[in-house]
Amino acid sequence: MRKIEAVDFFYLSMPEVTTEGDGSQDALLVRVAAGGIVGWGECEASPLVSIAAFVCPMSHGACRPVGSSVLGQRLEGPEDIARIAAQIELDSMDLLQAPHTWSGVEIALWDLLGKARQQPVWKLLGYRESFRKLPYASQLFGDTPAQTYQQAVEARRQNFRAVKFGWGPIGRGDLQSDFEHFASAREGLGKDALLMVDVGQIFGDNVPAAAARLPILEQVGAVWLEEPFHTSALDAYASLSQRSSVKLAAGEGAHNFYMAQHLIDFGCVGYIQVDCGRIGGIGPAKRVADYAAAKGVTFVNHTFTSHLALSASLQPYAGLRSDEICEYPFAPKPLARDLTFNHLERDDEGYVSAPDAPGLGIEIDTEAARCYLVDVEIKVKGRLLFASSDQI
Amino acid sequence: MRKIEAVDFFYLSMPEVTTEGDGSQDALLVRVAAGGIVGWGECEASPLVSIAAFVCPMSHGACRPVGSSVLGQRLEGPEDIARIAAQIELDSMDLLQAPHTWSGVEIALWDLLGKARQQPVWKLLGYRESFRKLPYASQLFGDTPAQTYQQAVEARRQNFRAVKFGWGPIGRGDLQSDFEHFASAREGLGKDALLMVDVGQIFGDNVPAAAARLPILEQVGAVWLEEPFHTSALDAYASLSQRSSVKLAAGEGAHNFYMAQHLIDFGCVGYIQVDCGRIGGIGPAKRVADYAAAKGVTFVNHTFTSHLALSASLQPYAGLRSDEICEYPFAPKPLARDLTFNHLERDDEGYVSAPDAPGLGIEIDTEAARCYLVDVEIKVKGRLLFASSDQI
Repeated sequence: MRKIEAVDFFYLSMPEVTTEGDGSQDALLVRVAAGGIVGWGECEASPLVSIAAFVCPMSHGACRPVGSSVLGQRLEGPEDIARIAAQIELDSMDLLQAPHTWSGVEIALWDLLGKARQQPVWKLLGYRESFRKLPYASQLFGDTPAQTYQQAVEARRQNFRAVKFGWGPIGRGDLQSDFEHFASAREGLGKDALLMVDVGQIFGDNVPAAAARLPILEQVGAVWLEEPFHTSALDAYASLSQRSSVKLAAGEGAHNFYMAQHLIDFGCVGYIQVDCGRIGGIGPAKRVADYAAAKGVTFVNHTFTSHLALSASLQPYAGLRSDEICEYPFAPKPLARDLTFNHLERDDEGYVSAPDAPGLGIEIDTEAARCYLVDVEIKVKGRLLFASSDQI
Repeated sequence: MRKIEAVDFFYLSMPEVTTEGDGSQDALLVRVAAGGIVGWGECEASPLVSIAAFVCPMSHGACRPVGSSVLGQRLEGPEDIARIAAQIELDSMDLLQAPHTWSGVEIALWDLLGKARQQPVWKLLGYRESFRKLPYASQLFGDTPAQTYQQAVEARRQNFRAVKFGWGPIGRGDLQSDFEHFASAREGLGKDALLMVDVGQIFGDNVPAAAARLPILEQVGAVWLEEPFHTSALDAYASLSQRSSVKLAAGEGAHNFYMAQHLIDFGCVGYIQVDCGRIGGIGPAKRVADYAAAKGVTFVNHTFTSHLALSASLQPYAGLRSDEICEYPFAPKPLARDLTFNHLERDDEGYVSAPDAPGLGIEIDTEAARCYLVDVEIKVKGRLLFASSDQI
């Protein structure tokens, strides 16, 4: 019987981390070993806090460290991953960070299982085919409309047919400033490219403030308005959705299946974007993809880091032909690029696909990863609970 | 101008922590200092992970440590607490543990403000009066129905007119076993005492399994069935609620206002029970109390630890006369009892009240606390981010 023998976390970081909204500045890489096979995953979460949630002392029966539900467990098939997930839900019920920690482990378990069976993860999920996706270049708005324009031109020069701009100055200044950014983006992209706009929850649950941007979003032909509100502000989503001809998109903040379900059912979003590195991994993301398909809502991955995370994020909807759009980190930090030997490069027509290779089909460049390794030590009652290792 | 000068965390624990569902086995005590005044609060959360979320390195602009939004901030009135909370919502958006960490800090800030103004927190919240509450003895089911019976008898002997049994064997065996526990509880309590049942999310989102217990809960006259499901399984709550003459109760897992709101609006619970030590503190709990009152839903505190946490949990609904029931730890571990000099003892008629004293009205026994102090050290890149101090 195959058992989970080891789970190792590697906290990687750029030498300098800034306040820009770029999630590729650090990474929490996870390696799982079982029966002589190794799988890799990535948490999209604070590395230190997520490590702490794996190794922390138990507080009581429903606040146990994630590690206690994982280490030593049987791993023969997907049903074992689901069983471990259910156990964590009960035994780490009061440990809020648990889903973020578990996500990276869960992804690594799928990678490992796929390698063991010599099948891509999307086949283990029940798909027969991995349909190609149209990547959109995902990037931050410029500080000025002129910068936004330049970035749009550059994305088009690199043959992206879809581009998303996010965060930065939007919603922090006046309407005119936002309009200039949106208009500059459209101007730089030309008429035909798909333009998406992501405002990073800036409006909290203030519907009128978000609604004030709708006419200019319609004017520039935005495909969607992403995250106008707090992930849980379902009433605000529903209310804005009713007023808007531009569809709403959200879901990256979901840390379980239900939160995504509620964004669909109660928030009335048109696009559901979950991050495998936060929602509890590939299993719950697949459940969201199935649910979205049944409800006529389009599934889109959320990914802003490495191509390991990108491959993981494509698996849950690889077999959904009509859900074609995919987020593609446009200008990640060197860490995110260097972390893997291979990358999901676009084909001649500009598409990418989840690899037709065992597991996630991504090879980690362990030597490169070592260069970004952050030294961490956690001691409780004089006992070393975690010490970073350079044995990547 | 008063500024937040220091926030100190003290991880306290019983020498031995077991897998029983007793949340009083450890505690995360928080001390805040501003303008020569000190306030105390408590997180109802994993101490190590919550500390890590205060001190962790920034991952990017929306994944900053909680500390960066708190230290050095102005603290003149309640509006400053709300402002800091809003800043954390944006700047620690991707740090899942943040609400649990912030909860204890927020409570301490209210305590500090109350002391500065020489007013109880419930007055700062806008209440004119602190109405007395009927405490229910909150305890775990026995391992056997005979033990459950004995515990019920003991609670009555101690003059509790309301008793809640929770967790333990319920939902893990067959219906007959559950029935025997419920019946033994009722038998031990006698006809007149209020009996509540808490099953600790054991049914996940399995409505039929929970529904199978309804007839026996009705038969023993249970006031409510608490947490049959995962906090976010709103459909399951709504579905069970429709079939049940016993009202449903939930909310302790809410880590923001919206989650409690959705349990009311979409989950159709009859009792909303939030924990100030998890939902983001006293501010959001008060918002839930107001919302519940407007919707005809009864607010109940969730508290299973010290009387510092108990006082904090009473403030948000101190002024709601008709919401009379309150959770009262019946047999907490010595740590939870020893932590404070004074306790919210029951009056001659068996009631307790939020203190009519500055702040939370609870004095910390720092010497006793020191006896339970857990030594913690967190180092990142060779820098000491946290070291526990015995300067309580």
